Amino acid sequence: MRRLRFLRSQTRTLPNLAYKKKISSSRSSRSSASSEFAASSQAATCRRYRRGSTMAGVIKCRAAVAWGANQALALEEIEVAAPEADEVRIRIVATSLCHTDLSFLGMVQAKFPRLLGHEAAGIIESVGEGVEDLKVGDHVLPVYMGECGKCRPCKSQASNLCEKYWPLLRTTMMLHPVDQKSRFSVTKDGRNQPILSFFTSTFSEYTVVKADCCAKISQEVPLDKACLFACGVSTGLGAVWNIAKVHAGSAVAIFGLGTIGLAVADGARSAGASRIIGVDTNPSKFELAKKFGVTDFVNPNDHEAPIQQVLQGLTKGGVDYAFECVGKVDLMAAALESTREGEGKTVVVGLDLSGKQLSFRPGSLFGRSIMGCSFGGFKGKTHVPHVVDKIVTKEVLVDDYITDVLPFEDINKAIDLLRSGKCLRCVLTMT
Amino acid sequence: MRRLRFLRSQTRTLPNLAYKKKISSSRSSRSSASSEFAASSQAATCRRYRRGSTMAGVIKCRAAVAWGANQALALEEIEVAAPEADEVRIRIVATSLCHTDLSFLGMVQAKFPRLLGHEAAGIIESVGEGVEDLKVGDHVLPVYMGECGKCRPCKSQASNLCEKYWPLLRTTMMLHPVDQKSRFSVTKDGRNQPILSFFTSTFSEYTVVKADCCAKISQEVPLDKACLFACGVSTGLGAVWNIAKVHAGSAVAIFGLGTIGLAVADGARSAGASRIIGVDTNPSKFELAKKFGVTDFVNPNDHEAPIQQVLQGLTKGGVDYAFECVGKVDLMAAALESTREGEGKTVVVGLDLSGKQLSFRPGSLFGRSIMGCSFGGFKGKTHVPHVVDKIVTKEVLVDDYITDVLPFEDINKAIDLLRSGKCLRCVLTMT
Repeated sequence: MRRLRFLRSQTRTLPNLAYKKKISSSRSSRSSASSEFAASSQAATCRRYRRGSTMAGVIKCRAAVAWGANQALALEEIEVAAPEADEVRIRIVATSLCHTDLSFLGMVQAKFPRLLGHEAAGIIESVGEGVEDLKVGDHVLPVYMGECGKCRPCKSQASNLCEKYWPLLRTTMMLHPVDQKSRFSVTKDGRNQPILSFFTSTFSEYTVVKADCCAKISQEVPLDKACLFACGVSTGLGAVWNIAKVHAGSAVAIFGLGTIGLAVADGARSAGASRIIGVDTNPSKFELAKKFGVTDFVNPNDHEAPIQQVLQGLTKGGVDYAFECVGKVDLMAAALESTREGEGKTVVVGLDLSGKQLSFRPGSLFGRSIMGCSFGGFKGKTHVPHVVDKIVTKEVLVDDYITDVLPFEDINKAIDLLRSGKCLRCVLTMT
Repeated sequence: MRRLRFLRSQTRTLPNLAYKKKISSSRSSRSSASSEFAASSQAATCRRYRRGSTMAGVIKCRAAVAWGANQALALEEIEVAAPEADEVRIRIVATSLCHTDLSFLGMVQAKFPRLLGHEAAGIIESVGEGVEDLKVGDHVLPVYMGECGKCRPCKSQASNLCEKYWPLLRTTMMLHPVDQKSRFSVTKDGRNQPILSFFTSTFSEYTVVKADCCAKISQEVPLDKACLFACGVSTGLGAVWNIAKVHAGSAVAIFGLGTIGLAVADGARSAGASRIIGVDTNPSKFELAKKFGVTDFVNPNDHEAPIQQVLQGLTKGGVDYAFECVGKVDLMAAALESTREGEGKTVVVGLDLSGKQLSFRPGSLFGRSIMGCSFGGFKGKTHVPHVVDKIVTKEVLVDDYITDVLPFEDINKAIDLLRSGKCLRCVLTMT
């Protein structure tokens, strides 16, 4: 396993126009620079170069780099390029971890080095040419669900899968930005190499994303809480509000009481569901789940019968809505068969990356439907700010997801916590 | 194969109260009675016995009985019991054949003898006690989708799967009526034995169904056309109007251009779909399909690429709605993947009785949904009369489904025609 090095944060900017030259000259001084950063404890500072109306230049900063599948992340000094046209560079204030990061980290077929992380909040540090809706100092969530604003889905309410960004996310394993070049690089042993991106690559003190992938949020919301809404919490709430459209008085089953499952519960409660059944093999989750509106708890291990039969019996005919938030095809089929025949809706929220097929009897569909979504059907720029506003009005919960807060350099501890199941969300703060 | 006997129609009634006795006495004269019926050419007549305000008594009449899997149907003289409480007896005027009848006839595990048929129209001959909404002489469609009117689905608009009748249809292989006793029997070789029912058992000059399974229709509609709306045509129209809710200007793909597929096309056209793509391996169907609104025709055999890729290319991103009307799980998955990612809806209309699982990548569900239905989501008694009214107003097509009209005694010819694919609907008329 790669040795983990803890580097104290220090950011530096290099003139954008002289990027290649500076990178080249920095290679020779790599060893000494590395030890210098490791020993330094000074707060992040930036030498900024004005370019037009925006700040520009390469920034050197700390980042947690994935060098290979299932390896601990390595804290490195990396270079973050200045934003190109239609891009923004964001100083990350807080980033949390999502299971999707861990899933990707476990993919042996994935290419490395890579900069993971996609659930963060920060402040615009500089903007590229042509960016008109964002300015330096704006509080933002970098969002992987880009929104070009011009395509058919962006102009309609029927879909959030932007025709420009959605195919990029899927076909290039989230290689981003659009020009296929990485905005991140690292110099190791005198050699500078690009670091591949992943969604919004937020395991770094700075990141660069397309302005289309950046949602401006209210400055009233603490960034170390708002960060959760860049993925998990919004995904769960959206699955209820946008996809299933849960109605008042309905019965809901939630498979998996992690952050997304609890967000589903919170969303279902706010939609007026009268019965919210949490399904999880870990009974210790029930007490916390009650805070999110879960009214009943079923541990599949307590029953000999398949879980769908248990739920059918418990609800005398099935739930109105089922949400699969684990990411296992077997549970997706069970969720489908847990719903009321004739009208039940099942929403697949979890991602099963095992390559297995989702299989069920076609007769299971009589009057039922099963549907999927990404990011809960929310459009990143248009919708997310309004969802974040609900933190201020206390229409949605936020504090109770955060079970741990650690400094950024403890990111591998956070990974261990998430893997152990002892943690819902661990927020890493940049200091 | 069982020898096919052609019996001319002749109906007789026996007093209801003396049913057993009369059946018993009729056994001894079975042989002569049989030959008498075979030779007779007189029109159907009934000796009716008044019982309260209704006609009652066992009726002897012609029926086409299935004696075993994959055997030709045998025209027999059968006994049709008088309607019990909440039941009606119907004189069938016309019955058509549906592929579901053939599928059932091919099930080696099914029990026989059985009276198939479920797409018919007729006239109420007598009503049992407690029936208030139907009277002798009413024109009706016996409908397999019963409607008790009292359960949650019957009282809501969300589902047509009546809690009383839907479980009976599914768990007892359509054994009907509710009391599990058959209303049909046949005397063979001196032995009287019950004939099992199937849905509404319309391959008979008379049938008995629950009043909850009987839709009163306008007398303006010819019964030999209205019969199609007891299953196939309503199923297709309903899949479009009730389940997918096709919107104006949308693109639709239809897998399978049989009667149900063409009804889907007609429904989609009336809903304003701008592009209706018919998918079928039989190119001879295209000309007729144009009459129903099909604008494009794709023969999967003309393409090396999978059909979902062909449709994705043809529509630059997928259709808005796909309907699987064949009943093959592979086509259901292909239909799903033919729809537009992010918003496509797929409706499974066909029944796959092979026991195979419907399987697809869970990622195929991103923003898409797949749903099933029975009888197109229509409630039998409440909705069907209004759909039939659209025949009169010419809002829906009816004549073009009927490719053949034969006398009832030619039912095995009709089966052969349907199996050959040369026939859409063959209407059998009782004379």
